[in-house]
Amino acid sequence: MIEIERKFLVTSESFKAEAFKDTRIIQGFLNTDKCRTVRVRLKGTQGFLTVKGPSSQDGLERFEWEKEISKTEAEALLKLCEEGVIDKTRYEVKVGEHVYEIDEFYGDNDGLVVAEVELQTKEEDFEKPEWLGAEVTGDIKYYNSQLSKYPFKLWK
Amino acid sequence: MIEIERKFLVTSESFKAEAFKDTRIIQGFLNTDKCRTVRVRLKGTQGFLTVKGPSSQDGLERFEWEKEISKTEAEALLKLCEEGVIDKTRYEVKVGEHVYEIDEFYGDNDGLVVAEVELQTKEEDFEKPEWLGAEVTGDIKYYNSQLSKYPFKLWK
Repeated sequence: MIEIERKFLVTSESFKAEAFKDTRIIQGFLNTDKCRTVRVRLKGTQGFLTVKGPSSQDGLERFEWEKEISKTEAEALLKLCEEGVIDKTRYEVKVGEHVYEIDEFYGDNDGLVVAEVELQTKEEDFEKPEWLGAEVTGDIKYYNSQLSKYPFKLWK
Repeated sequence: MIEIERKFLVTSESFKAEAFKDTRIIQGFLNTDKCRTVRVRLKGTQGFLTVKGPSSQDGLERFEWEKEISKTEAEALLKLCEEGVIDKTRYEVKVGEHVYEIDEFYGDNDGLVVAEVELQTKEEDFEKPEWLGAEVTGDIKYYNSQLSKYPFKLWK
């Protein structure tokens, strides 16, 4: 399927009080090519294998395919991943009709907090909460596959 | 799981008369790194996604994880694969206690025929049929991931 997502920086921690869910996520990449990525994710007790295609030119759309796998399978596959496993907490916050997913990163990406909202169409309107900062949709350096290779701590 | 496999060249077509099964296989790779490969395979009406780790030093053992996916999913993922999709027929031949899988390649790998036998232990004995040629276990150029990049027609 094709996903339409917009990504923003987050300017304060006030979203945490509004979150209805938070989940620790550990993930790695079996490859991080710009034409395709293969991600292994451990999300609580669930595992996922996700293949993403290249982004569209405007950075809004991307082919995404995901399959649930067991925790044990995910753990075995994480060992095969490229260096730079990502560790983060994902908060989910309902804002109007949409759910924002806010990732707070740890380790080499400590200090980075990014929010994503998924849309049905490119034109769809959505409410912007007060903690939402600059839009970074399509900026490759915020891709998790890039954060694993060039983490936030090296940006300064 | 860890697989133990030995691979051989095939010196004649006589194995075809002994085959109890043959299946057309189309496969591509989402990555072909030597530390890990992610393969998409279409095998008749079935699809598979397979992750393989690096080979052991003797080339005999390799971590392998496989998940069945639908034909439609495999077709979508094949479109994302690196260039050099592999097209072959796999013949299965029972020889003594073991089943040999013999791959006859087409396209850019036309002329190449390779047999593989899976063992339970490294020391396990197995019968060698008359059509079995030189052993090529662990020779990276016979890996399908390599054949997709440096096909048989370029070897001469």
